[in-house]
Amino acid sequence: MLEGIRIYGGETAEMADSKEISDGPSEAADKLTKTEIKARIPDLRVELVNAQFVLREAGFSVIVLLAGPDRIGGEQVVDRLHEWMDGRHLDTWFASIPTEEERTRPRFWRFWRSMPPAGRIGIFVGAWITQVIGEFLRGEIDDAEMARRTRHFNNLDRMLTDDGTVILKLWLDLPRKAMKKRLKNVQGDHAIYVEDLDYVILKHYDSAQPVIQRLLEASGDVLPWIVLDGSDERARDLAVAETLLHALQQRFDNPPRSPLPAVLATRRDYLAAVDLAKTLDYDKYRKELEALQLQLHQLSLQAREQGQGVVMAFEGWDAAGKGGVIRRITHAVSARDCKVIPVAAPTEEELAHHYLWRFWRRLPRNGHMRIFDRTWYGRVLVERVERLARPDEWQRAYAEINDFEAQIIEHGQLVLKFWLHIDPDEQLRRFKAREKTAYKKYKITDEDFRNREKWPAYVSAVNDMVGQTSTEDAPWHLVAANDKRAARVEVLTIVCDALDQALKKSKKKKQV
Amino acid sequence: MLEGIRIYGGETAEMADSKEISDGPSEAADKLTKTEIKARIPDLRVELVNAQFVLREAGFSVIVLLAGPDRIGGEQVVDRLHEWMDGRHLDTWFASIPTEEERTRPRFWRFWRSMPPAGRIGIFVGAWITQVIGEFLRGEIDDAEMARRTRHFNNLDRMLTDDGTVILKLWLDLPRKAMKKRLKNVQGDHAIYVEDLDYVILKHYDSAQPVIQRLLEASGDVLPWIVLDGSDERARDLAVAETLLHALQQRFDNPPRSPLPAVLATRRDYLAAVDLAKTLDYDKYRKELEALQLQLHQLSLQAREQGQGVVMAFEGWDAAGKGGVIRRITHAVSARDCKVIPVAAPTEEELAHHYLWRFWRRLPRNGHMRIFDRTWYGRVLVERVERLARPDEWQRAYAEINDFEAQIIEHGQLVLKFWLHIDPDEQLRRFKAREKTAYKKYKITDEDFRNREKWPAYVSAVNDMVGQTSTEDAPWHLVAANDKRAARVEVLTIVCDALDQALKKSKKKKQV
Repeated sequence: MLEGIRIYGGETAEMADSKEISDGPSEAADKLTKTEIKARIPDLRVELVNAQFVLREAGFSVIVLLAGPDRIGGEQVVDRLHEWMDGRHLDTWFASIPTEEERTRPRFWRFWRSMPPAGRIGIFVGAWITQVIGEFLRGEIDDAEMARRTRHFNNLDRMLTDDGTVILKLWLDLPRKAMKKRLKNVQGDHAIYVEDLDYVILKHYDSAQPVIQRLLEASGDVLPWIVLDGSDERARDLAVAETLLHALQQRFDNPPRSPLPAVLATRRDYLAAVDLAKTLDYDKYRKELEALQLQLHQLSLQAREQGQGVVMAFEGWDAAGKGGVIRRITHAVSARDCKVIPVAAPTEEELAHHYLWRFWRRLPRNGHMRIFDRTWYGRVLVERVERLARPDEWQRAYAEINDFEAQIIEHGQLVLKFWLHIDPDEQLRRFKAREKTAYKKYKITDEDFRNREKWPAYVSAVNDMVGQTSTEDAPWHLVAANDKRAARVEVLTIVCDALDQALKKSKKKKQV
Repeated sequence: MLEGIRIYGGETAEMADSKEISDGPSEAADKLTKTEIKARIPDLRVELVNAQFVLREAGFSVIVLLAGPDRIGGEQVVDRLHEWMDGRHLDTWFASIPTEEERTRPRFWRFWRSMPPAGRIGIFVGAWITQVIGEFLRGEIDDAEMARRTRHFNNLDRMLTDDGTVILKLWLDLPRKAMKKRLKNVQGDHAIYVEDLDYVILKHYDSAQPVIQRLLEASGDVLPWIVLDGSDERARDLAVAETLLHALQQRFDNPPRSPLPAVLATRRDYLAAVDLAKTLDYDKYRKELEALQLQLHQLSLQAREQGQGVVMAFEGWDAAGKGGVIRRITHAVSARDCKVIPVAAPTEEELAHHYLWRFWRRLPRNGHMRIFDRTWYGRVLVERVERLARPDEWQRAYAEINDFEAQIIEHGQLVLKFWLHIDPDEQLRRFKAREKTAYKKYKITDEDFRNREKWPAYVSAVNDMVGQTSTEDAPWHLVAANDKRAARVEVLTIVCDALDQALKKSKKKKQV
């Protein structure tokens, strides 16, 4: 067993009480002596480096969260890990004040930017929890907001763990007395860099305890925090390293079994309810389109000024006319404010990360518009139908996607999702027309015709998707697209209405 | 021939005179009528989209620089290109005030971040030239600095062109009168977003002309600027699109021939001059290492405070002990301030860019240290010897690398380059020892033994590299590494001395 370690949160939460957290287990009778610790290190180092080597080909990544009041201790632990392990395969991230580029995107964007790919270990010092504690103590966020944040932490834990990532959540505790003593001792020691922050932490030590305890419990729902006492630096470094090694070896020996598939909600045939007979005559179309584009243009300038971000997701049958709709939008908006992201098969680098990673990276900053031509819903559409994802993988994706979009919305951006619907006959007509048009020929291959056999499988997938991911703030818009003109006008109307509302709402909010 | 276009700079510079630049060629007799322009557009669009489709598989990228006094016109051109082309395969970048992340890195970092991969078109609005004009007009940079910047622009043109990239440099000119008239006309027009900047440009229009003319000439050395008159918006859009299409078609029909290999300077055997007999006994080593590590630790804290960035490049024979040296450095520096970048074979995404792209992306921000374990010199070492790069490619790499490092140094960061040298016998001894050590076994394969046959080829490559890329500010340090202890102490001494000097120098500079 590992020394000096207690599990905190999760199923074992009842094992710990608040007193232990601040007093720490350093007074435990089974404390290791200096000599014992020293004796363990050489073998430990060899095993750690070997584990890193095995990890490189193991197809999953490791995340170590290091948080707690012991900031200096955290840095020391990281330096120790870099000394004992192969630093070339460690990615270390230190919490600092978010940069301008980070502030203008959803909160987790900065973490996703730094997620380690398969084969590597990412150490997050300060982790995502530190910021929340500070904000709560300063009264910047209320209980409801804290609960929301905590839910996202837990969802992230679940999502990454389900994806095969090993996550270690280490809380470096240091009793108040020990902290005070250390800060006194290191005065004038040029080898340790004391920051004002350390004194701030010390000052608010006692008042922070209830908040910390609550947060550790709440954010330990999926994966518990492991609380380590930092009074004895040697013992602490050894405990961290052994915990990490243990977690790696456990995972090598026991690859996770796929969780049982989630049970899907009763299926409804949403697609059948779409009225494909809608049409729009040319003159009316020209007139409406022009008016809508002018409106969208003006709204987009307002969005730029108000810093309103917009995420648009386009899915639909092959040849449903996504490109044409998207061009009618981009035509109305300056290229300065809007970018289209064509989504194709993931690259090698993207495959080495969680499937949402490549979408997180491409989220717009405030005031910008990003149009995704095919989206993260590929997970529950093509990857499901073509069996590129296992059933447990695509089934849990619904909740993962809902959380992803909720974070964008909470950040204040707009999420608009469109499914362009046509029927199989219309698709066939368009395929054949493409073969005859010089500059559209490249758009059509034999595979497109073969894919038509999978139509019913896609219908199920789309219906499940709509049922599972139509949320109040980000509902699916199923657009009848047998008539291209009607589809374009419908989409532009929805975009204008939603953007108009969002801009009014955010203006009002700022005035309050 | 294309209408309304003049080439400016380069071999054809004498064709243009300053008067023409501001008056523009719109008064030319061969001006197209509105009807003629309209008639050309449908075919042009089909050809553009088709060219984009061919480009996707063509293995090179396209860069369009759009600059000039006509800011509004630039945005209109971009919107038009997005309308006429497939916007999903256009990457558009707008010059704006550099963000915090961008300011703390060498000037070109922000452009490299946005470089299009092979198969795509990147449009840079404002381009790199705009900032220089502003800074020069405001008196923030002098003639010497402007000359330096211009040299980098030209080097970038040459480097990317040599790499196969098609670069179009478009200068959108607008006579003063036309600009004034337009700003007056668009007042209250909600479809155009006028910025204060537009009035600033108008105010300084005349005084800026000599500077602009000089800069266009100087930065047109490798690739000339194409000056387009923007008085007639339709003609301008057509001219831009036709120029782009023409450039693409030209390139499809005439793939570039490899330029003739550069002639290398006379070779010197730098490696033979390294004294491999140097040794250091254990006690002395322990003592010196400890003192150096303490010094380095303190210097690194100072570097953090002063915002001194450091780039270290490590190359050397297999088993020369790079890892051991690097660990002695990282051990002394907090992981907060220092990151090791292990360089392996490039990924798919990296291969779709210029070979320097992956290194540009990883440059440290000010105050940080990045240690590259294997580097951009792979281009002139392994890629040369293993014939992964053609002779013209690796031969021009010397100049490209010198320019890359010069930009880092001009930004104020330190560049330190080390070649760890051992002899073939020592390498064999170490290979055999690795086979016997449990946690080093993975480091050795049959291929390593086979690679030994290429020793003489690598000796030539290293000598050429040292001769061609040892610059005053970034000389190569050839370190005798048959004795690991001596090598570690030598490297740390060099690092400490260089960092100490740089910190003193930058402190002095700030005080002045």
